[in-house]
Amino acid sequence: MTRLLLGRPLATTEAEEHATLSNKLGLAVFASDALSSTAYATEEILIVLAIAGTAFFGLSVPLALGIVALLLVVVASYRQTIYAYPGGGGAYIVARDNLGEKVAQLAGAALLTDYVLTVAVSVSAGVAQMYSAFPALQPWRVEIAIGLIAVLMLINLRGVRESGTVFAIPTYFFLGTMTLLLVAGFLRLAQGGVLHVTDVPGPMVEAALGYLPLLILLRAFASGCVALTGIEAISNGITAFKRPRSHNAAQTLLVMALILGTMFVGITVLAHSAGALPSERETVISQLARAVFGAGPMQVTVLAAATVILIMAANTSFAGFPRLAALQAGDRFLPRQLTFRGSRLVFSWGIVALSAFASILVAIFGANVTRLIPLYAIGVFLSFTLSQAGMVVRWTRTGRLARGQVVRSQYGTDVAYDPAWRLKRFVTGIGATLTGGVTCVFAVAKFREGAWLVVVVIPILVWLFFRVHHHYEKVADQLSLHVPARKGDPRQVKTLVLVDDVHAATMRMVSFARSLGNPWVGVHVATHAERVPRLQEKWRERVGDDPLIVLSSPYRRLAEPIREYVEELQNANPDAFIHVIVGQILMDNFVTQTLHQNSTVIFKLALQQLDRVAVTDVAYQLHRPEAVHDDYSAPQASPDGAELREPAEQGAQ
Amino acid sequence: MTRLLLGRPLATTEAEEHATLSNKLGLAVFASDALSSTAYATEEILIVLAIAGTAFFGLSVPLALGIVALLLVVVASYRQTIYAYPGGGGAYIVARDNLGEKVAQLAGAALLTDYVLTVAVSVSAGVAQMYSAFPALQPWRVEIAIGLIAVLMLINLRGVRESGTVFAIPTYFFLGTMTLLLVAGFLRLAQGGVLHVTDVPGPMVEAALGYLPLLILLRAFASGCVALTGIEAISNGITAFKRPRSHNAAQTLLVMALILGTMFVGITVLAHSAGALPSERETVISQLARAVFGAGPMQVTVLAAATVILIMAANTSFAGFPRLAALQAGDRFLPRQLTFRGSRLVFSWGIVALSAFASILVAIFGANVTRLIPLYAIGVFLSFTLSQAGMVVRWTRTGRLARGQVVRSQYGTDVAYDPAWRLKRFVTGIGATLTGGVTCVFAVAKFREGAWLVVVVIPILVWLFFRVHHHYEKVADQLSLHVPARKGDPRQVKTLVLVDDVHAATMRMVSFARSLGNPWVGVHVATHAERVPRLQEKWRERVGDDPLIVLSSPYRRLAEPIREYVEELQNANPDAFIHVIVGQILMDNFVTQTLHQNSTVIFKLALQQLDRVAVTDVAYQLHRPEAVHDDYSAPQASPDGAELREPAEQGAQ
Repeated sequence: MTRLLLGRPLATTEAEEHATLSNKLGLAVFASDALSSTAYATEEILIVLAIAGTAFFGLSVPLALGIVALLLVVVASYRQTIYAYPGGGGAYIVARDNLGEKVAQLAGAALLTDYVLTVAVSVSAGVAQMYSAFPALQPWRVEIAIGLIAVLMLINLRGVRESGTVFAIPTYFFLGTMTLLLVAGFLRLAQGGVLHVTDVPGPMVEAALGYLPLLILLRAFASGCVALTGIEAISNGITAFKRPRSHNAAQTLLVMALILGTMFVGITVLAHSAGALPSERETVISQLARAVFGAGPMQVTVLAAATVILIMAANTSFAGFPRLAALQAGDRFLPRQLTFRGSRLVFSWGIVALSAFASILVAIFGANVTRLIPLYAIGVFLSFTLSQAGMVVRWTRTGRLARGQVVRSQYGTDVAYDPAWRLKRFVTGIGATLTGGVTCVFAVAKFREGAWLVVVVIPILVWLFFRVHHHYEKVADQLSLHVPARKGDPRQVKTLVLVDDVHAATMRMVSFARSLGNPWVGVHVATHAERVPRLQEKWRERVGDDPLIVLSSPYRRLAEPIREYVEELQNANPDAFIHVIVGQILMDNFVTQTLHQNSTVIFKLALQQLDRVAVTDVAYQLHRPEAVHDDYSAPQASPDGAELREPAEQGAQ
Repeated sequence: MTRLLLGRPLATTEAEEHATLSNKLGLAVFASDALSSTAYATEEILIVLAIAGTAFFGLSVPLALGIVALLLVVVASYRQTIYAYPGGGGAYIVARDNLGEKVAQLAGAALLTDYVLTVAVSVSAGVAQMYSAFPALQPWRVEIAIGLIAVLMLINLRGVRESGTVFAIPTYFFLGTMTLLLVAGFLRLAQGGVLHVTDVPGPMVEAALGYLPLLILLRAFASGCVALTGIEAISNGITAFKRPRSHNAAQTLLVMALILGTMFVGITVLAHSAGALPSERETVISQLARAVFGAGPMQVTVLAAATVILIMAANTSFAGFPRLAALQAGDRFLPRQLTFRGSRLVFSWGIVALSAFASILVAIFGANVTRLIPLYAIGVFLSFTLSQAGMVVRWTRTGRLARGQVVRSQYGTDVAYDPAWRLKRFVTGIGATLTGGVTCVFAVAKFREGAWLVVVVIPILVWLFFRVHHHYEKVADQLSLHVPARKGDPRQVKTLVLVDDVHAATMRMVSFARSLGNPWVGVHVATHAERVPRLQEKWRERVGDDPLIVLSSPYRRLAEPIREYVEELQNANPDAFIHVIVGQILMDNFVTQTLHQNSTVIFKLALQQLDRVAVTDVAYQLHRPEAVHDDYSAPQASPDGAELREPAEQGAQ
């Protein structure tokens, strides 16, 4: 079943050649997040402007241009980062390398939050395109969104290369249809034709009232800034590109930014010219496609392309989140299970965690993009800011080096003198200031609508990361061996065989205890005192003269008397190991197993807190008929044969 | 916490003197079920008669008299049973003793179903009395009912004697208030006073239409028969009475039946005279109390008494269900966990199971008595029938004995000649025929309303009981030792120490392996091939020349390479034990434990299916600072001291 869903397991040595992407595939995998935001960024601007009145929709065009300017500054910064950090230069790494552990964890928290929101927002927006085409789907939007997240999870558990192949065609299909839409729309406008959106289904998206005009503008700008989300994906995933990696990644980033800017401005202008209105029932993209092509197959095609690119966008996070989580786990700020690669070489735990968190958000916010947007983009812009601030520090350090000198930074990247360091630092500094400003605008202007949640969650995450870190540090310290001495080895071993009844499984334990060759005794906890004489008789008959100690248990408890007995033994033999052998009768399946006492677990829990106590499970497999008699000779006629067949009243302890 | 809720643990020896009941306490514990049904039996008759029209309400009185006649016949039968089975003569035991295993399991299934329904119906009816007094409670009836079941569960986990004490006062309080109500009501009628129920809040209880008049009568009779539920409780619980047990139990049964019959007929006559109408908002008892005493404190007092007795009725099942389940489990037809007595000497698992099933029913049926009634009483009457059929067989057997002859029945009860056997058989035969008839009436007349569910569930339960039985029989057979031979003992033991890294917990495992004195090797699964050279170096440095085997794991799996290696060893040494030692680093608490790999469980699951493999857990408790260094000498300055401190990247395997 696992194999059917996930494919054959991959050997560790297959890692390198299997998971690298050409630029075209890289664009498909990493750019879809950035590009897809054009499907809702314009709409979110219009929703905010609608508070002031539809007359203000014209402001959407200058706002879009401003956002594109910001985009170009950020991309210029990130291209520098990609060259400086060819091993992958996400905000986390850059901050860790230049700004220290605390800021790095802040960046990590911001990015992880952002990845989760990217999935939630993109899938929700994709579902919105679906129900624009097929209104009957609207009541099922939450279920559809969560189903899509599950599908993405499975695809990603298979591995990233195959994801690239699967996703290349739809990404280019989206680019093609959007180009067609924009070209056809602008041609119609250029030729003086009429382009007008009609019959937008109600209700209009509701928005809170009573804002100051400036705040409305700021909020509209902040909403539009979601267009920038996703441009950092490439810098986190440089190692997925073919060599020369930095060059390929930087080229792809630039291409992506140009496409993104063109499409975003194009859609915004077209939406304004055609008089699109934000509606809860039909997306702006759908309205534009209907205005340009008329309601029909072409409109459905555009919506299908937008849906698919949005789902691909969610997929970007499935590449980024597990990589970042593994990085942080490698630094011991997250559970180390996140560093394990599964059978398909992907970070399975990260993929599953991302799917779970995103599904929860979708469920809570009803797969509603406008309700999710205030949470979104704070994380992105915070990480933009930290990353660029880190680069400012780095360029300053570069400037202090002699020409041609190369030093190694704390995390093993080469820092070399760069003659253009002042210019680069200036560009990056501008970028950091701008994105920092946008982060503040987001936090303030959208605080009441949900931004407060992110403002609260990110510090909590950082706190948790340090808790985890402190724990791992403490454990490493306690496990470390300063001087390996062998004082007292080998020690005495006192072996106890826990006996409930005398049957085949008991004889197996006795056989093991005898084979070990250490002194041993049987121990029985007398929860039913009346059974003891019969047990002792059977013990003498079948085991022989080996001692059987009976512990009284007036309160019918199993574990406590054993624990007390072991503690007594420890006090009497302070240097010895106490070795407790317990039996376990294994059934065919889980259901039949529950019909038995399974007290092994009880003993384990009672004894594991004791120092220098080893507990051995001797399993006895009931479903293998050949196992029953192979310890013993074949059944023979016996005078008391019938009487000897014991009911398995209690099973093995 | 457990102690606070349940009280101090009780020793096994405290069982006898602690849990026996005087007749008065016995009546309080066991009779409440039967008596409490008067609080709704009349109402359920009226609800059915309402289908034909309120003019037919007069039929309720002859129906009630017929039901009381049936009651007297059944009680006569059951008194015989109590004397014949002084160790407890529930339908299960009587059927098992006289009619064989299959019929006994049918009786067991019927009784268990009935106990669950008793709890659901009684608690729901109790809540109905509550909201008759305080209408605001009606929307919370399901929550209140489930909360009450939880309280009953806790009380019963404390033990039956204290239950008796807790419940005696309310039972006699109910008897007192009902007597007052009936006497006051009939005095008013006798003096020619007006007694009329007014202002019954709507809506009337709805009922399906279109039944034939005869079917309506049969259904009304069947509904009224719920008055008989609970009279079997005493015969199941004879051992809870003081000696002479049978005599005391039989007396209590008779007293109970007389009180029950009187109250039932009295309430029915009064309800008819006063013109009570079944309502979804106010119970008939509430209407009567209001008519007799007026709305006020006396009405509330009557309702409080009825509420409490109904909750006590549910408590009867908390005595009966776990006893019966333990009996069936002792016969190996139910999981044997049901035979375990908890710290307070009660059958804890049975109590918890009953609470769970009853809560589910209450939730499904919305705590609505009228919807639950069609499921109820089939189980009771089926068990009445089987019990009495068993007694018919027993009297026949008795008649075949010589005067004064005593034989022992299969399950150890004495069967003696009884001169009155023909009369007794006749009475019991009449009883069996009548109750068998009522069972059929129930199943047919109420099939559509829910009786089908019980008709389906009971055979499924019987099938499950035999599946469980078959399993235990098979296990007992496989574990039985025909001839204890010691072929091949002692055997060779091959010890493997699973090593992930070399740190304090590893050294503990190595110390244990050395102490055992058998040949051993370290085994490392190389999920990360690049770490192997460093590991081997540390092994040489700290463990020494003992061999360390490295198993390659190209797919980064932990358990499979070990399993394959163990299987190879088994093939090479077919008679040896393979002893696998795994380490476990124990943290302070569950949360920090999840930050570590905890691969012990993975190894256990992979190895437990292999024959003659013992797996030992060597726990290393991190939270005890003194444990860290006591295997080794105190930290010393070392040239490579800093380098020797290892990060706990993987922990112990």
